[in-house]
Amino acid sequence: MRKNTARHIGIVESRYFTFAHPPDEFILESNDRIGPVTLAYETYGELNEDRTNAVLVLHALTGDAHAAGYHRGQKAAGWWHDMIGPGLAFDTDKYFVICSNVLGGCRGSTGPSSLNPLTQKPYGLDFPLVTIRDMVDAQRRLVRHLGIEKLLTVVGGSMGGMQALQWVVSYPDMVASAILIATTWEHTPQQIAFNEAGRQALMADPNWNDGDYYGKRLPEKGLSVARMIGHITYMSDTSMSEKFGRRTKEGVKFKFGPKFEVENYLHYRGYDFVKRFDPNSYLYITRAADYFSMADYAPAGKSLQGIKTKLLVIAFSGDWLYPPYQAQHISKMCRNAGMDARCHILRSHYGHDAFLVEFDEQTRLYKRFLKNVHETTFGPKNVPTFVKSLYG
Amino acid sequence: MRKNTARHIGIVESRYFTFAHPPDEFILESNDRIGPVTLAYETYGELNEDRTNAVLVLHALTGDAHAAGYHRGQKAAGWWHDMIGPGLAFDTDKYFVICSNVLGGCRGSTGPSSLNPLTQKPYGLDFPLVTIRDMVDAQRRLVRHLGIEKLLTVVGGSMGGMQALQWVVSYPDMVASAILIATTWEHTPQQIAFNEAGRQALMADPNWNDGDYYGKRLPEKGLSVARMIGHITYMSDTSMSEKFGRRTKEGVKFKFGPKFEVENYLHYRGYDFVKRFDPNSYLYITRAADYFSMADYAPAGKSLQGIKTKLLVIAFSGDWLYPPYQAQHISKMCRNAGMDARCHILRSHYGHDAFLVEFDEQTRLYKRFLKNVHETTFGPKNVPTFVKSLYG
Repeated sequence: MRKNTARHIGIVESRYFTFAHPPDEFILESNDRIGPVTLAYETYGELNEDRTNAVLVLHALTGDAHAAGYHRGQKAAGWWHDMIGPGLAFDTDKYFVICSNVLGGCRGSTGPSSLNPLTQKPYGLDFPLVTIRDMVDAQRRLVRHLGIEKLLTVVGGSMGGMQALQWVVSYPDMVASAILIATTWEHTPQQIAFNEAGRQALMADPNWNDGDYYGKRLPEKGLSVARMIGHITYMSDTSMSEKFGRRTKEGVKFKFGPKFEVENYLHYRGYDFVKRFDPNSYLYITRAADYFSMADYAPAGKSLQGIKTKLLVIAFSGDWLYPPYQAQHISKMCRNAGMDARCHILRSHYGHDAFLVEFDEQTRLYKRFLKNVHETTFGPKNVPTFVKSLYG
Repeated sequence: MRKNTARHIGIVESRYFTFAHPPDEFILESNDRIGPVTLAYETYGELNEDRTNAVLVLHALTGDAHAAGYHRGQKAAGWWHDMIGPGLAFDTDKYFVICSNVLGGCRGSTGPSSLNPLTQKPYGLDFPLVTIRDMVDAQRRLVRHLGIEKLLTVVGGSMGGMQALQWVVSYPDMVASAILIATTWEHTPQQIAFNEAGRQALMADPNWNDGDYYGKRLPEKGLSVARMIGHITYMSDTSMSEKFGRRTKEGVKFKFGPKFEVENYLHYRGYDFVKRFDPNSYLYITRAADYFSMADYAPAGKSLQGIKTKLLVIAFSGDWLYPPYQAQHISKMCRNAGMDARCHILRSHYGHDAFLVEFDEQTRLYKRFLKNVHETTFGPKNVPTFVKSLYG
């Protein structure tokens, strides 16, 4: 439902916010302390005078701050390029969109590959375990730093959705609304199991060397297998059949070489990932997802009582990794606690990847939701001009 | 639906049949030749005088000839112990049940860990690629060796179902009926992808050493990861949640140790597998499954025309690895070719493992099917006494 006026964002740059400079420290959920902490982030659009038009976009497991536009000299656009821009779902003519990389990551933010100030060497496994709550606490520092007291919405898919849900529970007064996409109330044993298979594949690589591989040979094979497992779970039986069928490639001599196209695809995805992702970050971030459980954190929805944040919960029919029943469960728990939560299951055969590729229906839903949030948050009389224009 | 008289089988022994002794050779689908070839097998019950009561049971990916009863000194029963025995689904008071290990395997049959007669060393990767058709061709030799011209039924689940389907197409006159369980008309890209992730995990282990690890350190870590991936696909989201929930274990010190019960389970399954399975056999057998395609072998069901074999095709509602639509497709292709094929989808939340654990409904269906096959194959007048007794 993109308008004809919809345009994409051009050249952008990541920025970096550093806090918890010594002697200050950032205290984690585990009570471990780290500092300084840097978050990489990008922004698109302009913050309005009232500072009421900020949207925080949160990325999935291996995403980064580069959600839209292009980095100079790079061909690939940001990971949600078709959702963020003038006239797009998150309309940068109207909203100030922030995308923050996660704590524990390796794309400009502090994580296990960062220098440990105590040793002046990369942390490696000395980096403390971080949780989704820690990621959100760090993002809150960034949001405050940008001068924002209340976000119009926080939105994220997959692990980004876990962060968005955590934002709602940790800082309900700072978020007018949240859009939780293809995510879960708590990581299930099957979701943990896939992550664990990936971690074991990585740690089985002797080059992993107990996490001490910086400046040496990378555990490329292990990380690549972990990524292959991931990609199988992001697609679906149907989307794989449509994309690859049983087509084979000629000239594969080795008995166990990648004869089938689907095998080639997985190999490509695996080795492409190795170029851009720190293996230890993969361990820390998948672990954070595994520990995510609102059932532990907000038993029986107790911590949800009185929360005014409006929720839109989205799932995709063909997503078997974060199946629709999990979105319905989030929505139910929130409504049971008296919250305003709606759940939509969108039809798609793209599997979990759907939130990264199914734009039209998402755009329609998110635009309508944001319009509604504005109306109820600021009242019909105080709706800013750019929102009024949405009513046509 | 087991009768009160149902009993289990006691002590059994595997037997071995060797053929293609030099200068004879066994010619594979690839036109490669091997010999001698040994198949491990077990039998339960007695072959009747007319030799009309033989049932051939075919195992899944990593199964073996030991389908029922106990090996002396061993605690674990055969893998279909609750389905084969006096009064059970495959009633050994009535039927002569044969279970054959597959060519390419490592449980007593010729495979990559067998001695290459040319070098007197294990074949390793010099072992030729084998297909499901090759496995069936070898089993045919065994069946002839046992003096059987026509099997009452061939039955198998998962890769055993592929073999059963291949039996029907390769040797229709030798099989009065077939029971195909939790299997597919052709291996899909998703099924190939999971196998490939496992193979890559195994081959990434430096101890794999291009398949030349015999007498040296085994690629334990790699094979273990492959098995973990497999086990996730054999269970279901629901069965994992019921079995493990998010329960954790105390005392796991390592940050990325198996904190969750589901992780412990996978580790146990992985390392247990290493004790009993040859890593190279894992490569060869998964590859045979990947190459399985009736769509290639019997395009548009052409090779099915005129086949009189009766088919019972079974799937389980919660099996996402070999989903019910694949059973329905087999059944449809066969019926389109004029065959007598019926498809039943059994309700179960056990995932692909259901055929190894859901006995009651399978027992009821298979007993009724076998009774019917007997009646129509031998005519009402010629129904052997043991079959008449089924009518009560």
